[in-house]
This record gives sequence, C-alpha cells and structure tokens, in this order.
Amino acid sequence: MEENKLRQLLDSLTWKEKVGQLVQLSGDFFHSEELTVGPKKKLGITQEIIDVVGSVLNVTGAETTRDIQEKYLMNSRHKIPLLFMADIIYGYRTIFPIPLGLGATWNPKLIKEAYEIIAKESRSAGAHVTYAPMVDLVRDARWGRCLESTGEDPQLNAHFAEAMVRGLQKEQNGHLEGIASCVKHFAAYGAAEAGREYNTVDMSERRLRQDYLSGYKSAVDAGAKLVMTSFNTYDGIPVTGNEFLLKDILREEWGFEGVIISDYAAVQELIAHGVAKDEREATLLAMNATNDIDMKTGCYANELEPLINKGEIDPKLVNDAVWRVLKLKNALGLFEDPYRGSTVIQEKENLLTEENRNLARKVAQESLVLLKNADNLLPLKPNHQKILLVGPYGDEQDLIGLWAVHGKSEDVVSIKSALEKILKQDNFSFEQGCGLLSDYQFLGEFGATKEQIGSLKMTETEKKIALKQAVEAGKKADIIIYAMGEHTMQSGEAGSRTDISLPKNQQEFIEQMVELGKKNILISISGRPLTLTKEVEQMDAIIQAWFPGTEGGNALVDILFGKVNPSGRLSMSFPENVGQLPMYYNEFKTGRPLNSSTHRGRFVTKYLDSPNAPLFPFGFGLSYGTVDYDELKLSSERMTTDLEISIRLKNQSPYECLETVQLYIQDVTGSVVRPTKELKKYQKVNLLPKEEKIITFSLDRSDLYYYMKDMRFNTETGDFLVFVGKNSNDTIQASFELI
Amino acid sequence: MEENKLRQLLDSLTWKEKVGQLVQLSGDFFHSEELTVGPKKKLGITQEIIDVVGSVLNVTGAETTRDIQEKYLMNSRHKIPLLFMADIIYGYRTIFPIPLGLGATWNPKLIKEAYEIIAKESRSAGAHVTYAPMVDLVRDARWGRCLESTGEDPQLNAHFAEAMVRGLQKEQNGHLEGIASCVKHFAAYGAAEAGREYNTVDMSERRLRQDYLSGYKSAVDAGAKLVMTSFNTYDGIPVTGNEFLLKDILREEWGFEGVIISDYAAVQELIAHGVAKDEREATLLAMNATNDIDMKTGCYANELEPLINKGEIDPKLVNDAVWRVLKLKNALGLFEDPYRGSTVIQEKENLLTEENRNLARKVAQESLVLLKNADNLLPLKPNHQKILLVGPYGDEQDLIGLWAVHGKSEDVVSIKSALEKILKQDNFSFEQGCGLLSDYQFLGEFGATKEQIGSLKMTETEKKIALKQAVEAGKKADIIIYAMGEHTMQSGEAGSRTDISLPKNQQEFIEQMVELGKKNILISISGRPLTLTKEVEQMDAIIQAWFPGTEGGNALVDILFGKVNPSGRLSMSFPENVGQLPMYYNEFKTGRPLNSSTHRGRFVTKYLDSPNAPLFPFGFGLSYGTVDYDELKLSSERMTTDLEISIRLKNQSPYECLETVQLYIQDVTGSVVRPTKELKKYQKVNLLPKEEKIITFSLDRSDLYYYMKDMRFNTETGDFLVFVGKNSNDTIQASFELI
Repeated sequence: MEENKLRQLLDSLTWKEKVGQLVQLSGDFFHSEELTVGPKKKLGITQEIIDVVGSVLNVTGAETTRDIQEKYLMNSRHKIPLLFMADIIYGYRTIFPIPLGLGATWNPKLIKEAYEIIAKESRSAGAHVTYAPMVDLVRDARWGRCLESTGEDPQLNAHFAEAMVRGLQKEQNGHLEGIASCVKHFAAYGAAEAGREYNTVDMSERRLRQDYLSGYKSAVDAGAKLVMTSFNTYDGIPVTGNEFLLKDILREEWGFEGVIISDYAAVQELIAHGVAKDEREATLLAMNATNDIDMKTGCYANELEPLINKGEIDPKLVNDAVWRVLKLKNALGLFEDPYRGSTVIQEKENLLTEENRNLARKVAQESLVLLKNADNLLPLKPNHQKILLVGPYGDEQDLIGLWAVHGKSEDVVSIKSALEKILKQDNFSFEQGCGLLSDYQFLGEFGATKEQIGSLKMTETEKKIALKQAVEAGKKADIIIYAMGEHTMQSGEAGSRTDISLPKNQQEFIEQMVELGKKNILISISGRPLTLTKEVEQMDAIIQAWFPGTEGGNALVDILFGKVNPSGRLSMSFPENVGQLPMYYNEFKTGRPLNSSTHRGRFVTKYLDSPNAPLFPFGFGLSYGTVDYDELKLSSERMTTDLEISIRLKNQSPYECLETVQLYIQDVTGSVVRPTKELKKYQKVNLLPKEEKIITFSLDRSDLYYYMKDMRFNTETGDFLVFVGKNSNDTIQASFELI
Repeated sequence: MEENKLRQLLDSLTWKEKVGQLVQLSGDFFHSEELTVGPKKKLGITQEIIDVVGSVLNVTGAETTRDIQEKYLMNSRHKIPLLFMADIIYGYRTIFPIPLGLGATWNPKLIKEAYEIIAKESRSAGAHVTYAPMVDLVRDARWGRCLESTGEDPQLNAHFAEAMVRGLQKEQNGHLEGIASCVKHFAAYGAAEAGREYNTVDMSERRLRQDYLSGYKSAVDAGAKLVMTSFNTYDGIPVTGNEFLLKDILREEWGFEGVIISDYAAVQELIAHGVAKDEREATLLAMNATNDIDMKTGCYANELEPLINKGEIDPKLVNDAVWRVLKLKNALGLFEDPYRGSTVIQEKENLLTEENRNLARKVAQESLVLLKNADNLLPLKPNHQKILLVGPYGDEQDLIGLWAVHGKSEDVVSIKSALEKILKQDNFSFEQGCGLLSDYQFLGEFGATKEQIGSLKMTETEKKIALKQAVEAGKKADIIIYAMGEHTMQSGEAGSRTDISLPKNQQEFIEQMVELGKKNILISISGRPLTLTKEVEQMDAIIQAWFPGTEGGNALVDILFGKVNPSGRLSMSFPENVGQLPMYYNEFKTGRPLNSSTHRGRFVTKYLDSPNAPLFPFGFGLSYGTVDYDELKLSSERMTTDLEISIRLKNQSPYECLETVQLYIQDVTGSVVRPTKELKKYQKVNLLPKEEKIITFSLDRSDLYYYMKDMRFNTETGDFLVFVGKNSNDTIQASFELI
C-alpha cells in the first residue's frame, strides 16, 4: 500500500480501532469455539477490542493462521490484517542447536543461512514476525536463558545478532522476503542478579553502553523491524516504562522507527514492580516510553481510550504507535496478501526438507565443542572397538531444548539411532543405566500430573537393575560413551539453578561406571555451561553438545568418528564452580592482579579455594589436529589510522582442521579502567593436512573505540597489547602504540 | 596551636617538607637500625623525604612510638610531630567480637562504649589515628571482609558507623579525648564482583547513593577526621583517582574538610588498574581527586615536587592537602604533646583491664546469635549432664579473627577453659577430634614454611586416632558441643571463598559423630555467614559465635548455661548455598514475584533447585524465651508529618528476654522500584519473665525518603506497608497512606 493511503487508513480509524492495533492477544482469543465463551472476561477485554485487535501471539500453522485471518477480516471494517507473531528462536520445525551452541560456531555467515531456512519454514507456516534474535549478553551460567544467547562477548553477540536479523528478514531493496525480526530483550536482561530469573538488574550506564547494548544495536542497525522490552529494571525503572532506554537511546540515539512490543504481560507487571499503582498508570508509563504493543494484558485494551478521552495522554503518542504497527504490516505486504503466500501445500513442501536437515546437521557439527581428548582417543574408528552407549540422553529424541516451541521431538535423530547406522550390532550396545533426574517434582509447575511425574521416576529396584545392566555391559565394552546432561526443563526461561553441575544421580552413575577402567567419553547435553570439574578428571574425552537440535545425533556421530573435525569454540566461559559467578573473560584490570608486580601472596585479587580462571575459557575448543601459531607480526609498532597483524598457522597433523583464529587487544592505559582482553577480530580458517597459512587481520582506530571517561565513544593514544591465538587464554602477544 | 600560627607554619615549609606531610611510611623506615641500611632504596624514596615524612603506618606501643617520635623530632626543622596511624579495627589489646558480630548486637549504644575502650587502649599505646570504622555494606558472603563490616543494611550500618566514630574520637567541644577515626573504605568496596577481593565494582549511581554511601556519610557527619579510599573502581575509575566520589560527593556535597588517605599502595595501584601510565600520572590523578596522604608508595614522595616545579599541578591543591594534615595534628594536640600522654606506665595500666574485659564479655554475649534450639535443649544446667566438647576451636585461643592486628591469642579465654570453670571434671571432657583444615597449603602465602605447614597437618593415622577418641568419649556423653569453624586466614582481607561451608574435614567429622545419636550443639566460629544447611539438619542447637574476641569463651559459656539469654540478631543474611549470592533482605520488587497474583508455577522469579530465601534471614536470632507480638496499631491510616506505630510484646516465658523489635516499611508504588522491605526502626527491649510491654515507634516523612526518579532525596505520596516483628521474615503487617 502506498504511504499516503496508509496514512488515510490511519486517519480513518476510531480510537478503539487504533487501540486494537496496539493490543496483542494469544490464540485462545481467536479460535472460533472459544470466541463465544470465555475470552471476553479474560483480562477484562471486551469483544469490541478483540474484534479489532492487531496481532496474535504464538499461533502458527498455515491452516490455523489462514482460518483465523479469514474470519477476522470478514468482520473487519477496514480489513487491516492480523499480524501473527511467534516464538521461533532457533528453528521452526527443523530445529538448529540452541543459540549458545550457535555462538560456539563463531560463524555468523553460516548462522545467517540457518536463519534464512528458519524464516522460510516460518513464513510457510503463517508466521509474520518472530521474537528473535535474543541477543542478551550473559555472564552468569546460573541464568537459564543462557540457552537463548550466543554468549558473553559484546562483539561476537553483535555479529550473530546482525546475521540472524538479516537471515530472518532477507530484506532486499526494502522488500522482506523472510519474516520480520523482533530483537529481544532490550535491554540487559541477561544481567539478572545472582542469576535468578526476572531479578533486579543494576549497572552503570558505562557498563550498559560498553557491553550490554551492542547486540541490540547491531540488530537494529541490521534492520530489525521490532524490538521487545525486557522484564528487568534498569536504573530502578522496568524497561517497559523506561523512557531513557526506549525513547532516549533506542528511538532518538539509534533512530529506531520500528515497533516496540512489551514482553509477555510486562505492561501489567509495572504494577507488581511497584512503579504503577494500577493498569491505568501502567498504560501511561509504557505508552509514554513509546512501547507500541501491549502483549497479552488488558492494560492498553481497557485503559488507553479513556486516557485519550480524558486528555491524560498525548494522542500523538498513540497515533505514532499505530502508525508504526501499520507500517510494519505494510512492509510485510499484508494488505496485498494477508497470508503472505502461506498455504497448507507450501507449508508441507517447505518444512523439514532434506536441505533444511542438512544445514541443521552442518550447524550442529560446528556447534559441538571438544573440551578434552586425552591420548587422542577421538576420533573413533567404526567397528574397531566395542562401544557401549549409556545415559538418559542415549536413546532420547528430546534434544531440541526448551524454547523450540514448534519443534517436534519425533523428528529428532537420537544418538543411539545415529550410532546404529554406522556400527555393527556386535560392536554396539546401549544401556540407559540411570534416569535423567532422581526428582521430577518441579515438572508439576508445568501442569504435569502426579501420575506423569511418578511414571518418570525410577524405583530403587529399577535404579539398581539399570545400573547393574550398564555395569555388566560395560565390562564387555572397550569404550563407554555417556550421553548425560540437564533435563530440558532445567534451562531456558525461568530455568535458573544455584547448582549447575550434572544432576546428582547422573554423577553417581558415572562414579560407578568409571570404576570399570574403560575408556570414557562424555557427551554433555545442556542449555548452559555446566561445572564439569569432576568429569574432566573422570573422562578421557568430553564433547559439549548443548541441545543440538533435529540433526543432533547425526552431527555427534560425525564428530565422534571423525567424519568432521570438531571446530566449535566456547562463546561463554565454563566455570570451575558456581561460586565464581558471574564470570567473563573480558574482566577489568584491577589494582592487584593475580600476577601483580607489586603484591605477592594473599593480597591479590583471588579466591582462597578456587582459581579465578574458568575450567574452560572463552574461545576454547579442541580439534583432532594440532595447529601451531607463530610469527606474530605487526605492520608497524605505531598505529595512526590502521594496523595489519599477521600470524602463521601450521597444521602439524594429518587432519583437515577448521581453526578459529582469535585476536584480542588490551588498552594498557585509558581514562577509565579497561578489560584485560577484548575480542576484536576472528577468522575461521580451513587448513589441509600439514598446510601452512599466513593469516592477516586489520585493525583501524574505530576497533579501539570505547566509552571514555566523558562517555564519548572514541579512543585515546597510548600503548596497546595485541594477543592472537586459539582461545582467550592461549595467545601470542605483541604491542603497539596508538599515536 | 592557634590557627594563624599553624598557617604560618604551613607557609614556612619548603615544598619537600610539604610533600613529606602527605607521605605515610611503615615502621621499617623508622627503626634506627634500619634507617641506615635499606629503606632509602625501598619504594625509591630518598632519605630527605623520610626525614620529613608526615605519618607512620601500624607502629604502636608506647615505648616504640615515643622512641620514633623523639628521634624524628630531634632531626626536625619545624618540629612537626609524626602522626601514628594503625589498624585498630575491633580492639587494640582487649579484642571485641569481629564487626559482623558487633552488627549482630543491634546495639550501637553499647558499641560506642566498646570503641571508647578501644580508643583509650590505643591512645595509651601511642596510636593517634585508627583506620576504623570499616563501614562497607556487604551482600556477598564470599567476600572475606564481611568480617570487618556490620552487615547488609544501610541504616544499621550508618548507626554503627556513627557509634564507632563517636566512641573512638570521644569529642567534646572540639576536644578529641580519644583517637582520630579514619572511616573506610570509601566507597562501595563491599560490592566486589563475584565476592572476589579487589575485583571490579559496578553499580548505578542510584544504588550507590541509596544503599552504599550511608555508612560513610554517617561517619563523616559524626565527625570522622579522616576518610580512606577504597581499592575498587566506581564507574570505571579507581576511587583513589575518582573525582566524582572524592571531590564532588565527599568534599563538596558532604562538606568533608578532613584528611583523605589512600588505602595501602592504592595510589601506585592506579598504574596496575590501567588509568595511570606511571607514578607521575598516578600522583596527578590522586592529587587532583584531593587524596591527601599517599600510604606506602613512592608516588607522592618522588613525583609531587617535580609536578609542582613544572607547573603541572595546582600548588593550591598541595597546600590544601598539607593544611588538612596539619589541622589534624593540631586537633590531636600533637604540637603541645607529641606523645598525647602515652607512656609505658599508662599503657600498662590501661590495657586489658578488668573493666575492658568485662565490656568485651558483655559485647560478645550480645553478639552471639542462637540459630537453632530444638526442644529447648539450651540453656544447659551445669553438671546435670555429661558434656563432651569437640572440635578444633574447643581448646583454641585464636578466637580473635584476622584483623585484630595488635591483639594476642594468649589473652583469650578459650571455650574449654571457660567450661572448666563451671563444670566438674566428671561431667566434662574434651577431645579435639579433627583438625581445623585438612590442607593448610594456603598459609604458605603468609610466609609459613613448609615445616610449619607440615606440622599443622594431621597424618591419616593421627586423624583416625583423633576421631576414634572423640567417638569413644562421645559414647559416654549426653551432650556433644562442637566448636567448629573457619580458619582465621579464611576470612578477612583477601579471604574470598567460593565455597562458604564448614571445612570439608570438619563436615566429615560431624557426620561420624552425629551417628552416636547424642544431643548435638554447634558453636560456629566464622568471619562470614556460612552455609549451615547440612548442620541445621544435624544439630539440635546452633550458636553463631563469629570470632568472639578475648572474652569469647566466657561469653559462650554464659549463653550455653543461661547466665545470659541470647539476644543477637543477624545483620547479614545466611544463605542456603553459595549459588544464591549476592543476597540481601531488602531486595527490590520484581514484575514476577514469587507470590505473584498474575503468574504461577515456573514463570516467577526463583531458582529451580533452591529457595530464594536465605537459610536464616536478616534480623534473625532466637532467645530462650518466647515473646509474642500482637496488636499492631497505627496512630492514623494517613500520615502527613508523622505517624506513631505501636505493638504489644508479651514475654510468655520464665526467662528475662532482651528482644530486638524491628520495624520495616515498603513503599508500595514509587517513581522507581522500591525494596520489598526496608528496616527503618528497631528497639532492644528488656522483658522480665511474663512481662508485657507496649512498644512505640515514630516515623516521620524523612524516614520515607529515598532517591526518586529524578535523584532528589524525598518521598512521594501513596500507599506504604509497615511490618513489625522479630526479624525481616517474621512480622505483622499494616498499611498507611502518605498524603
């Protein structure tokens, strides 16, 4: 629709119709059988508003969305189509690894391809907008939503944010071939205190700008059409009512002209937060902060029109918000085709295709991180040894993690089924050995009945039998592969844990099994960094597998047997113990560093009972080959506008290696304290067996920018260190002076 | 000295002499035998500066200080006496409980008396200034310096800060009868990230002002003559060079005209922090921030004069700093008597007197917190049961904690010796049973030799024998008292721990002993809140004893046998587990509280595997009696200028009870999110057996002040909740409206 026509449309709407565009309701308000019964009373929203509501939450599927849209439009005076928005975070039907695994690929280009696939599937299924990417920077593995983040680095997160937005929207010349992207959760949601979900966030503006905003900014710059507010406070004010964040930074500084939508019920939650007395005040706060859409509360629906009528809110604010929603619908071409081509046939053709599965497998391969490989136990040779697979994730299709809302476990290739494809029956056996948890009580919170919970729990006798069978099978095996990990419900939203080790019953099982003295390989399935301190002692090899998605089993077997050389690198530090949290590799210099030149012994920054360092540092990941780094060279010892940095890589091994070369800097002296190391550049480099390559990076002044004492984003002359290497803790160092 | 004469003195000083006043050196620079050898080279400081240096660090004792002062003055052109400053934190020779224990008294009036005693002892011993009080607010029990803090509440800390300053200085009509107080560590040192000593601090200005500054402000308002800078950064800038904190807030807003001194080596540490390139820049930053004295580095000594000569620093800054130091010396009367009456005879008379010991005993009694007392096991009756005392702290005089620098273990009454005073030999036995730790390696950091470390460690055989003897003795006993806890070196400065449970070997010992099925009482000695989750299950009674000081054993026995009814209340939450940290009772409201009216099940703020709540909440502490609270009454449902709140207390027991009645408020809706509860008032109330009392509190508007959205310190009309009760988690609730 042409813009002037769209403007006329806006002008022709009643206030009620305008308010409707700013309200988002869930599917239960739209299914015909329910329309006549309950929903009017739900949230106190009247049928009048429901009839003119602007968008729908988490309803997908070509048939359902077409049906709802059709019925809605039939009743609609202005024929403004509904917008279908959904949680499609790392896959619609073909599920990719969880984003913390995507982060471990260090390959935004590949991830862009993945999100193109995700968009294609989603669009076929009738979705117009996805609440993705989630780009919250995380430094605390207790927080369950690590799962949805690409990790702890501001720059890496920014790159992934851009890749995901571009992949999802696939925008060319203003035409949106994919679906609209709603970046979330603006802002700093990942900094919940003590890693406890929904808890207070407090930080300086300097930290906010320096570390936490980069992901959102990158997504906005890449053209994300929407931004979702976060649940947390910033500077004492919940983001959904925070004018500093939404108006001053997002709209004014960044020039964001798209739609801001509150997270689920967040407008109403301004009351529980204690900054609004009632829904009227909550509506005022959110609207004044330019939050456009109210997700799933009655606040805007019930309070906005009275506020306008009483002159208590500037009508321009409301008109601007509606205008942004209409522009989004127009950009999606909904006025021309309210279904965006989604049909049942097209949906069937596009979901879970071989091409999609292949890409999911490739992405999963690159997401897997080899954490340990003593005596080069891996890769295994098929049918050379007797292999026993044990553990609750061995024969389990639930490898897609908590937030693959539209994914199906039944599509998933399990580890066992993938192994069976390449191993002869004589050489392979499986025993579950132990349950996932010993206590499933917490599932009751999701509505699981007592009977369902009871059925999951093994009796003491069953436990003993399972263990005994595993031990017996273990005696006959050469190698034991342990498929262990967290329950799906132990991570993701509201999945905060104070103990982030493997479930206790699994630890006990491992303790028994390693007594057998066989070669032991751990596949660790988790939505967060776990404390694998004990397992590092017990296991010969460890593969961090995240929730690897639909093709998880295949990808794991590709790695185990060397069809693919592991190339994943951690994008989040794995702590030694929970008492080290929060933790981040780019920590600031202190006056008394561990390696202080002026202080010794006790009086330096450290714990008495634990290293400061993580168990596995940011950027860490092994490969089957050995690649040496040497000859770090700078084009000059002094930098004015730019600097070239080169390093030589030598593949010493008979394996083809996909190496992630990482470049960090340290600003030695600044007007404010700077991090010990900051990732600035990285390259994924393929090296054939015995191949040697010179890798070159280029730095320019803007790579050295930071928020200086006066909050200007720029740089100061002086000494810098540059570190190049395999991970944040294994680098070669040089220095230069910025003049 | 009259002020105009003092001004003349200042004017008569050379720049070198002025610089000298701003330099503080340690004792090794002054002992005659050393003066001729090493010190000139130490820190690169010349003898010229040493000869005119202004103050001395941690040298005490009448004889030594007199000797140094005398020699110094003999060589001095202007006869400006040296200032002797020392770490006298919770006792000079008579050691009181650690400040976290003092916090548990909730009795600032009593603590003021204690600090008068401390000042008297210190002055006798030649000290002019103490680096106390330490008033850093703490929310993370991992941080070892919990020990030196009175806890997690802004207001309680402020009250103790005032009491300690007034007690130390004992100032009347401008005359300082005590010693000068140096409040520390300004500011927010207690918020080190992840509880790791010296680590980065980051927070919003709102949080700084609302929570962290109150203690320092209170000390300054009470007339503290000095302020010490903290090691940490604030807003990216180390405090010693932080103009916002030192100039804008401390000097300008608060009008502080006293001396600012850097913490140990903190000026030089600006280099390691990476905000100064070298000592010259470090000097500039610190001086520009109005840091007057440079403690124990060569920065001011070597760099300040050249900076003045080159015109790179404003000479007025230096003159002002020297003026403040001279004024302090004058306020102490040093120009009239450079020894302040300290003589060897007077020192002998004043140290460790019976009066001092009695007060230390009384304070220790009030600091002990009864955490559990199942079936009213306590108080014990002497010689009614057979008592076995076990544990490494049973026969141990080292009950004074890490920072009682001038205290002596040999003065301490151990638990065993105190018990022996009232128990007959037949009814009492002692077996150590286990060591304090199983690994003492970390003591090497303090210069302990391998042999010394080796001698501490029990061999496996010794361990077995010790356990066996304890078990055998346990079989014969009715009651086992466990004197367990942290090693002195496990808390205090640089005593951060990631695991804050009892040492593992002690846990193992307890596990064995409780198998005997006897009545079990734990005395927990620690410099921080420990996670006593397991012990709460194992023990019938638990007394939190901190490091109770010189009279610790006596005070504990007074409590155990009911000579005194326990009245201590926690001033810091005791967590269930380390994964809950940081933790504080006055946490903010969230949009999804645990008891949400709009959300159920998973999607509220919580952990999956742990309660949000601590094991023992702020304000918690049991008594041998039972006091009921009822009839909470407000003088009005609406408050304009003030409000009276009364509650009825009924002592239901045959014990005299010292009850701490606590009043909290909640500001229901504010322009920023407010805490769920904030302590506003408290009263220690003595109740005779069966006595009933009506307790009245009065609130005025200023009690409701906070930093509003626009950062003004004021209050907004609206609803408030008021809670009165025994601790932060056990209260009766009412409400009022502020109009």
